Amino acid sequence: MSVTAAAGFAASGVHAGIRREAPDVALVRSLEPAVGGALWTTNRVQAAPVEVSRRHLALAEPQAVVVNAGVANAATGERGVEDAERTAEEAARALGLEAEEVVVLSTGVIGVPLPMDKLLRGVREAAAALSPDGGDAAARAILTTDAGPKQAVAARAGFTVGGMAKGAGMIHPRLATMLAVVTTDYPLEPGEADAFLRPAVDASFNRISVDGECSTNDAVVLLANGASDVERSAETDAAFAAALGEVCGALARAIVEDGEGATVLLEIRVRGAASEEEAVAVAQRIATSPLVKTATFGRDPNWGRVLAAAGSAPWNGGFARVDPSRLTVAYDGVVVFERGVPTGHLPELAGSAVAIELDLGLGDGAASYLASDLTYDYVRLNAEYTT
Amino acid sequence: MSVTAAAGFAASGVHAGIRREAPDVALVRSLEPAVGGALWTTNRVQAAPVEVSRRHLALAEPQAVVVNAGVANAATGERGVEDAERTAEEAARALGLEAEEVVVLSTGVIGVPLPMDKLLRGVREAAAALSPDGGDAAARAILTTDAGPKQAVAARAGFTVGGMAKGAGMIHPRLATMLAVVTTDYPLEPGEADAFLRPAVDASFNRISVDGECSTNDAVVLLANGASDVERSAETDAAFAAALGEVCGALARAIVEDGEGATVLLEIRVRGAASEEEAVAVAQRIATSPLVKTATFGRDPNWGRVLAAAGSAPWNGGFARVDPSRLTVAYDGVVVFERGVPTGHLPELAGSAVAIELDLGLGDGAASYLASDLTYDYVRLNAEYTT
Repeated sequence: MSVTAAAGFAASGVHAGIRREAPDVALVRSLEPAVGGALWTTNRVQAAPVEVSRRHLALAEPQAVVVNAGVANAATGERGVEDAERTAEEAARALGLEAEEVVVLSTGVIGVPLPMDKLLRGVREAAAALSPDGGDAAARAILTTDAGPKQAVAARAGFTVGGMAKGAGMIHPRLATMLAVVTTDYPLEPGEADAFLRPAVDASFNRISVDGECSTNDAVVLLANGASDVERSAETDAAFAAALGEVCGALARAIVEDGEGATVLLEIRVRGAASEEEAVAVAQRIATSPLVKTATFGRDPNWGRVLAAAGSAPWNGGFARVDPSRLTVAYDGVVVFERGVPTGHLPELAGSAVAIELDLGLGDGAASYLASDLTYDYVRLNAEYTT
Repeated sequence: MSVTAAAGFAASGVHAGIRREAPDVALVRSLEPAVGGALWTTNRVQAAPVEVSRRHLALAEPQAVVVNAGVANAATGERGVEDAERTAEEAARALGLEAEEVVVLSTGVIGVPLPMDKLLRGVREAAAALSPDGGDAAARAILTTDAGPKQAVAARAGFTVGGMAKGAGMIHPRLATMLAVVTTDYPLEPGEADAFLRPAVDASFNRISVDGECSTNDAVVLLANGASDVERSAETDAAFAAALGEVCGALARAIVEDGEGATVLLEIRVRGAASEEEAVAVAQRIATSPLVKTATFGRDPNWGRVLAAAGSAPWNGGFARVDPSRLTVAYDGVVVFERGVPTGHLPELAGSAVAIELDLGLGDGAASYLASDLTYDYVRLNAEYTT
C-alpha cells in the first residue's frame, strides 16, 4: 500500500524510542535508480532537515527518504544541521548509497535536539526491515498526533502512484508539520519531478487549512523509478499528472478530515472571481476565518461572516476584488444571498460536510479550498498540553 | 465623560427597541461649528451607513453622529442605503442641520433591514435628550455583546480629547463591528482631521486583534469644534496628536480586554525588523496565530509556535524577512530563544497579561500589537448562538 504500491519500492517503519511507544522512524527506498524532487515549506524559519535535504536534492537524484517522528529538529542551530547530515549518512551507509541521495524529514517537537543514538539505531533497523510490503508500516511511523495513517494509491494502465502523509495541523505544543512522500514507477527524467509536483501540490496540499498555520518542516517528496517501463507520450504524461493529483488530493483531504478537533469537512468553492489568484485568496480567507469556522462547528449557515471574510481577502497589497451587488452565496446548494440581496432561505446544516459556494460575478477565476471547523477540541488540544 | 468631555459637545443614548432591552440609539452633536473626518473599514463588503457617511463627509463637515446598535444595515442592498439616508435626514431635521452634516453608523446583525419606525422615533428621542452630560449614555447605547462601555479622555492644558468605542470582535452571529467616536475642542481646519486621525488609528485600532476579522462596518470618526480657543502652534499640534493617540490607544486596549472569551491580554513587541512594515507583518501574524493564541490561553510559553508564525508573516507577496540565527524571543522578559539557540529557560506564565518580545536582529523596524487569547469561550460565543 501507499509508498510501496508502485513497482520497485520498499519501505519500513520501526520504533526507535524517540516517541514513547509508537513507531517513529520510516524509510522509503527505490529499488531501481530513481529521480525525484520535493516542495518545501516557505516559512522563513526552516528546520535543519529541510536545509540539508534541499542541499542533497541540488547535488543528486534522491533514492531514499528517512523520516523520524517525535522531534522536528527545528530551531536547533548548527547542531541540528549536523544531526540531519549524520542521519542521511547513516542511512546511506546502510543502503549502499551516497548521503546526497538520501532525503531526511523530521516532524515533532520544535527546539529539542534529536536523540541521535536512538535515531541512528532506528535507521539501521529500518534499513534491515525494508520490504515491498512495508508501505503500511512506514505510513504509521511518520505520525505524531494523527488519528491514523493517511495513504492513497492511484493505479493506471501501466503504472501506479502511491503516497503517505502525516499532519493534522501543528497541533501538539511545538509540534510541526505536514509531510508527504509519494512514489511512482512512472518514468521521469532527472529534473522533471518538480514540474509535475508543483501543480499537484498547488491544487491539493496548498488548498487545505486546518488552522492557517505554516510549519517549519512541511515537505512533499516525489520519487519516480520508472520500474513500470510504460512508454511515455503526451497522453501518459497527462494520465500521470492526473494520478499524481488524485493521490495528493486524497492525502490532503485525509489531513483535513483528521484536523485537530474537527467535526466538519468544510469545502469552499469560489467561482466568478476577477482572476484565479483572487479566487484562491477569497477561498483561503474564508477557510481560515475563525468566525466562519466556529459558525460551521455550530452548524450555522452564517453567510454574513462569509461575506465579511470574502471582502477582506488579502491580495496584491489590498483586498481581492469583491462586489457585494454581484455576489451570490450558497450553502449546500441553497442560495442564501443573491447578487447583493438576502434570499431569506437558510438551509439546515447537519452531518460532517458543508459546502459553501460563492459566485463573485466578476470573471472566470475559480478555486476550491478544504478546511476543518474550529471547535472546543481544537482549543483543548492546543491549550491544554502545556510544556 | 467620553464624547462630552471636550467643551461644546452634547450626547445622548436612548432605547428605541431595536435591541430587546438595552439602549440602542446614540447621538453625538457638536454645539459649535465643527470639522471632522473618519476612517472606514477597508473590507470590500461595506455596510450601507459606511457608503452614505463617506458621501456625506465628501460634501460637508460633520456636525453630528448617529449610531444604532442591534442591526448593522450591511448586505441590505439599495434599501439599506435609503434607510441610512433617511436616518441622517431625520437626525438633521431634529437638529437643524443638513443631512450631509450627519454621519450615520450601525452595528449589529448583518443582512437584516433596519426597523425604520423604531429607529426614526429613537433618533427624535435622542435629539430631544441631548445633554453635555450625555457621554455615558451615548457610550452605553452603541454596545452589542460588549461587557461594558469603553470610554477614554485625555485632558491637556487648554483642550480635551474624549472618545467612546464598541467592539469585542465580530462576535455575535452576523454581528459586525468596531466603532469609535472621538471628539475634541481643539481647533482644526477643514480637511485636517484625517491627517491627525490616520497615525493615531494606525498605532491603536490597526494594531489590535481579537480574531483577525475585519468587519463590514468598522469606523472611527473624529469631530473637532475648536471650542477650547487654544492658540495653535507646532507644540499644541503635537500635544493634540499625542492626546488623540492616547485616547485611541486606551479605547483599542479596552476592546481587546473585552475580546470575546479573552482571559489574557497578549502584547507582542517586535523590534530589529528589516523595515517597520515587516515589523507590523510579523507582530500581526503572531497576534492572529490560532496556535500562539491557544498556547497563551494554556499559559504555555510555546516559543516554537511564535517562531513558526514569525517566519510566515505575509509581506510583499511572500513572507517578511526573518533569519532564525539572528532572532531572539523573550516571554515576560525571560529570553527563551537567543540568536538561533534555545536558552532552556521557560518562564511561568500566570495572570492576565503576557508580553512576547522579538528582536529580529536585522534592522530598525519596530511595532507592537495587542491581542486576546483563543479560548473555549470564544468558540462557545461564536458557535453556540446559532441562527
